[in-house]
Amino acid sequence: MSAAAPAPFVPLPSADPACPLCREHTGVPVWQDADWRVIRAEDADFPAFYRVIARAHVGEFSALPAAQRARCMALVCAVERVLLERLAPRKINLAALGNMVPHLHWHVIARFAWDSHFPQAVWGPRQREVEGGARARLGIDLRALDAAVATALSQCP
Amino acid sequence: MSAAAPAPFVPLPSADPACPLCREHTGVPVWQDADWRVIRAEDADFPAFYRVIARAHVGEFSALPAAQRARCMALVCAVERVLLERLAPRKINLAALGNMVPHLHWHVIARFAWDSHFPQAVWGPRQREVEGGARARLGIDLRALDAAVATALSQCP
Repeated sequence: MSAAAPAPFVPLPSADPACPLCREHTGVPVWQDADWRVIRAEDADFPAFYRVIARAHVGEFSALPAAQRARCMALVCAVERVLLERLAPRKINLAALGNMVPHLHWHVIARFAWDSHFPQAVWGPRQREVEGGARARLGIDLRALDAAVATALSQCP
Repeated sequence: MSAAAPAPFVPLPSADPACPLCREHTGVPVWQDADWRVIRAEDADFPAFYRVIARAHVGEFSALPAAQRARCMALVCAVERVLLERLAPRKINLAALGNMVPHLHWHVIARFAWDSHFPQAVWGPRQREVEGGARARLGIDLRALDAAVATALSQCP
């Protein structure tokens, strides 16, 4: 089963005009529903880097009602599992920081021993150059990966 | 209601002898139950930095059964709420990375506009020195904060 391409990004009526995650479409759109959208970040160093983004402008994870928190982590978990199954990474990194953009978004990042920053965080100091670039080194069809992620999200309870 | 001090750290029979989070006690013990333990990290730059650590040696969040994932995030959320209520931080950072120690542990970190790295991640480049140190700047009794965290965890569903 394949997932339909997500609808074009349309800000919610409640969008915060000062918040880029409320107003702007960035990254490759992968999937969305009424409350969440998932994009691929298009990071040159980390090709398998997705974000699970709240549609509404909420700052902290604990501000969500319990059912929304459960839904959010089910989506994060679904993305994680696709990355584990398809890419066999060394590690998955999960993070909700929001220091620069305090609108809830979860980073889900496949990490490899060869990547530019491993074992440091992606926000830490670069450890090495990756010859030919990370996307070539990963050597997979990112559109097919996006489709697998979208399918998993569509099937997520 | 106050929470009892956690029992001394005892590795599980299933502990991985190569894993420091299975074998070693680090940080200030705050709370534990059969499946999880919570410590304060004693980081000089980030005094209100807690970790929610799986007792068992599990690598990825998605490897946990659903009920354990829910319990884990309920604990993370409980710590977050205490930090928000008691410290009014600029932001809470949540992360499960595990690149160096692939044993599931969630970082829960109160961030402030004045802290040494804000708005960068705690793993990113230092932005400034904090005169007198972060603990003095925060100006709270960390043992009382630990007790509030432990109480919230004890009441967590």
